[in-house]
Amino acid sequence: MVLYVIGLGLGDEQDVTLRGLNAIKQCKKVFLENYTSVLGVELEKLVRFHPPRRCFSSGRVCSKLVALTLCLVILADRDCVETGADQIFEHAKDDDVAFLVVGDPLCATTHSDLIIRANELGIKVEVVHNASVMGAAGACGLQLYSFGQTVSIPFFREEWRPDSFYEKIQYNRGGGMHTLCLLDIKVKEPDFEAMCRGRTVFLPPRFMTVNQAIEQLIEIEEK
Amino acid sequence: MVLYVIGLGLGDEQDVTLRGLNAIKQCKKVFLENYTSVLGVELEKLVRFHPPRRCFSSGRVCSKLVALTLCLVILADRDCVETGADQIFEHAKDDDVAFLVVGDPLCATTHSDLIIRANELGIKVEVVHNASVMGAAGACGLQLYSFGQTVSIPFFREEWRPDSFYEKIQYNRGGGMHTLCLLDIKVKEPDFEAMCRGRTVFLPPRFMTVNQAIEQLIEIEEK
Repeated sequence: MVLYVIGLGLGDEQDVTLRGLNAIKQCKKVFLENYTSVLGVELEKLVRFHPPRRCFSSGRVCSKLVALTLCLVILADRDCVETGADQIFEHAKDDDVAFLVVGDPLCATTHSDLIIRANELGIKVEVVHNASVMGAAGACGLQLYSFGQTVSIPFFREEWRPDSFYEKIQYNRGGGMHTLCLLDIKVKEPDFEAMCRGRTVFLPPRFMTVNQAIEQLIEIEEK
Repeated sequence: MVLYVIGLGLGDEQDVTLRGLNAIKQCKKVFLENYTSVLGVELEKLVRFHPPRRCFSSGRVCSKLVALTLCLVILADRDCVETGADQIFEHAKDDDVAFLVVGDPLCATTHSDLIIRANELGIKVEVVHNASVMGAAGACGLQLYSFGQTVSIPFFREEWRPDSFYEKIQYNRGGGMHTLCLLDIKVKEPDFEAMCRGRTVFLPPRFMTVNQAIEQLIEIEEK
């Protein structure tokens, strides 16, 4: 059977391609990757209006996609994709399975690892491309042709303040290139204080603002 | 009314997004940009099976899209887009008009000029993103994050053998970056010999092969 790795594009559920939608429709299980970026659809609001037909205990339900595809979407967090990918492969041995990714699966979020592992298990993989955040750079009026290496800017922590991305921005500038800076997202981060007290609690999601990124760059520059 | 600038993605007509298809369906005129890249659909073959409902003298017809959208697609060559864009704008003043682009409209083929001119004329523009050839780099197993500035390699002519792209590749390598090299396409090039004899004849389309590109790079290196 086939593991379809499907890009959803940048906006909402209408940005899926016909090829992607047709693949989703024929899949028995649909996973939505839910930790490298954020789907532009408010799940909670929608669940109320489109109750799912079946329920999985392992995840919430993305109902706007449900309405489109008439199948159930399982939200896959980092654990599910990285350490629990076996459950995805297990399903894909007997049925067609879709693994949805916001943007493009191989462009701004490279799920090559998942694909390589599936290939090793003899599972056929088909990738359905879509627009990615890297393509969106063109919408700002900047030519994607003129971008150099992309950098990720992680949240600084008390003891961990890496600065290697600064040199890459400098090198890009030296060659007359722009730099796309991807700002950190922290979703489903464990609360270590609570863990010490024996409870599993997750911190609220955090999204780095442009100002936070600039403050970190200035800190590196002043070193 | 709205000028929809719609990316078609990389493969065939099934790679259009739902948002894009819905926009096309409500448009009275649909143009397909037909000189910066090539749609992965064999037009001639398909026309035979899906005869168009109406015919325009100015262009051929892309019938697989016709079958999907039930409207007529006008193939827009360089003249039509660059010097003849006024006809596109003229239609867009009274009706919704779609301008289709293989790949993404602003990523690998930046149609910013068309959009700026439409804005100046007070025409509302909506861009529908899609996968582009730049995103396809990820499908080779290379991380798009690690690409530097993209270069275009034009066909060398007897008297015109530019080499500035070579330095850009070198700079990218210096920073540990890959380079995406876009190879030249010559479609609807005038045959100057025939023109001298008073006839308008176009040369057959040419697509640079990887070997031709490498031969040109070696020639520059040996200089």
